[in-house]
Amino acid sequence: MPGEVTLTFRSAVRADVPAILGLLADDDVSRDRGFGVVPESVDAAIWAAFEAIAVDDRNELIVAVDGDEVVGTCQLTFIPGLSRGGGERMLIEAVRIGSGRRGQGLGGELIRWTVERARERGCRMVQLTTDKRRVDAHRFYAALGFTASHEGFKLAL
Amino acid sequence: MPGEVTLTFRSAVRADVPAILGLLADDDVSRDRGFGVVPESVDAAIWAAFEAIAVDDRNELIVAVDGDEVVGTCQLTFIPGLSRGGGERMLIEAVRIGSGRRGQGLGGELIRWTVERARERGCRMVQLTTDKRRVDAHRFYAALGFTASHEGFKLAL
Repeated sequence: MPGEVTLTFRSAVRADVPAILGLLADDDVSRDRGFGVVPESVDAAIWAAFEAIAVDDRNELIVAVDGDEVVGTCQLTFIPGLSRGGGERMLIEAVRIGSGRRGQGLGGELIRWTVERARERGCRMVQLTTDKRRVDAHRFYAALGFTASHEGFKLAL
Repeated sequence: MPGEVTLTFRSAVRADVPAILGLLADDDVSRDRGFGVVPESVDAAIWAAFEAIAVDDRNELIVAVDGDEVVGTCQLTFIPGLSRGGGERMLIEAVRIGSGRRGQGLGGELIRWTVERARERGCRMVQLTTDKRRVDAHRFYAALGFTASHEGFKLAL
């Protein structure tokens, strides 16, 4: 159908890293934090982080792809724990949809896919935090069934 | 000096698990969630979670010990990521101080120790969420330098 988007979701490969960095930087809150510039080349610390994720079966760097274009990303971390009967929890971090593609329902598709990923793995809980300034994001996650039950505290080192 | 407590902090061993489960259950919010009863024996899912943490160099189950007594616990997860220049973030989960030992500054000692652990490892960020009902905890983390900058969303599966 005209206008319909069919996203695919997969683990990121090295060739996706520049596009992911672009998505991470393309964001008002990241710009406020001083991370709004896409580096001209990917430095060693970023490659090391990419490789650390790639070999860790409790971390998955996900891309949402439309044709050949990376239009969204997020990172999933599966955390074992003794709470809640010993089930894993899944943490979602670094969710981004490209600024030119927002408002088209792609974020909802991405998050619903991650929740299915958590169910498939047997997780008992999905959790994420979002900056208090991201009021649209708060409505978005509530509409997807999440509850804003917690305060999210951060300490930059 | 009389009344002075010197805690030690270390990774949990199998023998600590019953005490940790006791601490996790000894909490009003956990009771509300239906996890307020300490199981009579530690079941297989809990042992599996303990072993998963023990062999994972990005997860540490910590106990705070006073003499022979486990008086506190928390879990640390070190998360690699492409944000913030490729630095790790440290997530703190499942923080508990035994109900008979609260109000003695032990929680502050525990959290300061974890922040040192994050610095030692080179983390760029420490983060945690705490239930919105835990108003005392909010003051506690703010006093330790944390900022309540985020909304914490959860989805139980």
